[in-house]
Amino acid sequence: MDNELIEKVLEEIRKKVDLKNISKDQLNEIVKSSSENLISRQNKENNNKKEVDLMSAPSPITEFVGTANYGDTVGLVIANVDSLLHEKMGIDAKYRSIGIISDRTGAGPQIMAADEAVKATNTEVISIELPRDTKGGAGHGSLIILASEDVSDSRRAVEVALKDTDRTFGDVYGFDAGHVELHYTARASLALNKAFGAPIGKSFGIIVGAPAGLGVVMADTALKTANVDLVSYSSPSNGTSYSNEVIITVTGDSGAVRQSVIAAREVGLSIARSMGQNPVSTTGKPYI
Amino acid sequence: MDNELIEKVLEEIRKKVDLKNISKDQLNEIVKSSSENLISRQNKENNNKKEVDLMSAPSPITEFVGTANYGDTVGLVIANVDSLLHEKMGIDAKYRSIGIISDRTGAGPQIMAADEAVKATNTEVISIELPRDTKGGAGHGSLIILASEDVSDSRRAVEVALKDTDRTFGDVYGFDAGHVELHYTARASLALNKAFGAPIGKSFGIIVGAPAGLGVVMADTALKTANVDLVSYSSPSNGTSYSNEVIITVTGDSGAVRQSVIAAREVGLSIARSMGQNPVSTTGKPYI
Amino acid sequence: MDNELIEKVLEEIRKKVDLKNISKDQLNEIVKSSSENLISRQNKENNNKKEVDLMSAPSPITEFVGTANYGDTVGLVIANVDSLLHEKMGIDAKYRSIGIISDRTGAGPQIMAADEAVKATNTEVISIELPRDTKGGAGHGSLIILASEDVSDSRRAVEVALKDTDRTFGDVYGFDAGHVELHYTARASLALNKAFGAPIGKSFGIIVGAPAGLGVVMADTALKTANVDLVSYSSPSNGTSYSNEVIITVTGDSGAVRQSVIAAREVGLSIARSMGQNPVSTTGKPYI
Repeated sequence: MDNELIEKVLEEIRKKVDLKNISKDQLNEIVKSSSENLISRQNKENNNKKEVDLMSAPSPITEFVGTANYGDTVGLVIANVDSLLHEKMGIDAKYRSIGIISDRTGAGPQIMAADEAVKATNTEVISIELPRDTKGGAGHGSLIILASEDVSDSRRAVEVALKDTDRTFGDVYGFDAGHVELHYTARASLALNKAFGAPIGKSFGIIVGAPAGLGVVMADTALKTANVDLVSYSSPSNGTSYSNEVIITVTGDSGAVRQSVIAAREVGLSIARSMGQNPVSTTGKPYI
Repeated sequence: MDNELIEKVLEEIRKKVDLKNISKDQLNEIVKSSSENLISRQNKENNNKKEVDLMSAPSPITEFVGTANYGDTVGLVIANVDSLLHEKMGIDAKYRSIGIISDRTGAGPQIMAADEAVKATNTEVISIELPRDTKGGAGHGSLIILASEDVSDSRRAVEVALKDTDRTFGDVYGFDAGHVELHYTARASLALNKAFGAPIGKSFGIIVGAPAGLGVVMADTALKTANVDLVSYSSPSNGTSYSNEVIITVTGDSGAVRQSVIAAREVGLSIARSMGQNPVSTTGKPYI
Repeated sequence: MDNELIEKVLEEIRKKVDLKNISKDQLNEIVKSSSENLISRQNKENNNKKEVDLMSAPSPITEFVGTANYGDTVGLVIANVDSLLHEKMGIDAKYRSIGIISDRTGAGPQIMAADEAVKATNTEVISIELPRDTKGGAGHGSLIILASEDVSDSRRAVEVALKDTDRTFGDVYGFDAGHVELHYTARASLALNKAFGAPIGKSFGIIVGAPAGLGVVMADTALKTANVDLVSYSSPSNGTSYSNEVIITVTGDSGAVRQSVIAAREVGLSIARSMGQNPVSTTGKPYI
């Protein structure tokens, strides 16, 4: 089985190498793909290893809930938060347990997913912080803290959130020069309210473009397309963590919000293509 | 079996390498350029795709003006900014149109270019924001917003700015551990005034070193070399977006400013070389 | 001569490949090391060039003290800081000279090393700034400014600090999705006091996890494990430069601090492994 994998990789290299006059470009190709293969194979290895770990691990970390498929997203829980830490994190005295959603790449997808999680469970959103991250990309990671009286609620919420990112990453379109990202919900809840001031229970859309200039044009298109209200406007030096994004959020009638988000997506992707980029859905399954 | 394949691969590489009387520098160049070629090849592919798109595209995006050759710089315009957005962006009521210069890598080059653009056109600088970016590098990207009564003026300004970055990237010297960047103009205008408080109409220089320590020594050298006035001093936690740079700007007699900038360049490049780095002009054509 | 170098590299690869039963792990290792070798070879090349430069250079840069082995750390001194710069940097009038420690990756290791340097020399810590950096990673770089009346003291301090990072990088564990980092000293001095408010002369520990969620669980474990006082708690939007880290610092009885840090390390590394990551000591020599 391992050999099959090895064979496959080598076969590919061999095909390239067997060409008669290997050019400098081709040599470059080999060198280039070595690092790409390294990453993809390492990921596979890690996945295999993880499976093995899960099967054989004698004492798994009780705080570890799991990972999501995208964004280096990890889910964690603490059943009884240490009292010093509890105070420093500003958690309400009535909650002993917290759930943690933390990632390198993505704020929108995880916040949307956390929003679904708090709808589905008996938890509260304590804080949402947005590091400047995305591993060299233009945007944010996130650190989302949920709390509950009972740890099982936090754990359940984290599980729901991790799973739901498979959906919400569907409208994150990455490309070399930046990204285009859209989110939509028919009914905003506590996470979206905490992060963006979304009116609870109302239709809500998030529109993100990077580099920031894309976001400006996407915002303009979104607002012109349908009769929506602008909830927030963030730019590199105002409302982001100095990310290279313009982010707007809109609310209103659900049809209008959806229409607005879709129009912004079209113009964002078109500009990216005009820049010579190839924007693709992270999951291959747009959800809006 | 696997060994045979690997052997063959290595043999091919070896043959290629042995055939050419490849020098140490050339090998270095090949290895080093592998990642650069990766990007440029991707770009070529994208460009090909773009050409196809442009030929077949039924309705090109009117907001898209073009791209510059460096820094993932894109130029955009909006002819009639949506009124909600207009207000949120703080644009003066008399301007309907905006021009946008947005990029992943570089603030100095784009601001210098925008400065030339506003000199040459009937536009005003609305805002200059500096995301922490450079795609994993040590510095900033930028988001520059220009405004005009007529969209043709904004469009023209963006075109001028995109073109001028070919010049202003000439004194951006990138290397693995950081960068050394210099800018000089005999006559500062509104963009430099907005971004750095440059006295309008006077000679102006920008001196940047990364990691930040290089910038400290460059600043010291610049100020000791010639009789210039220090306009601004920025460091990671003060005046930058937490970039790993020290940036100073200077003004004064044009000869003195130029001399000061050149001296800073020499010491910055020397330190980089002492660090075992190989700083090179982004365009191959220093302009100062 | 150049061919000799190439031959050597290829011979090394070939030796590895000739091993009879090449496993998936070994192939992985080879592919992986190709990119690492690329970097290290380039570094060697650069070092060779540097040695040549140093031998042949008629006027080496007097400000350049040296580099450390990790983090793109460079040490610099200025014997007589320019008076304008002196004022802008807020340096006490009695100090003419400054020492500079500047890097792309790492704040903890360099601050710990600077702490040892000020203990060992007649210097003072002027400022410690933390750019958001690590070359696309989740954390900080640093810019540390020391000052002294005599340049020889600053130079000596920088030399001590550069050398000591070989030790302090021992408990920095990098992996693709983040890092786990620990520091411990039996006696905190002026650099740790400046950076984190460490009580001078007391035992002090630093606990860092990235992405930030790891740091929350590490913090909780550290505080539960031993009777220590929490000195500081930093998170992406509070006390960091929007890095994707939670950082706590603790003080107390030296045995307790050490125990607390070690427990945090274990849980941090375990979570990383549960995430399918492979955290490894930067130097291969943990020091705590």
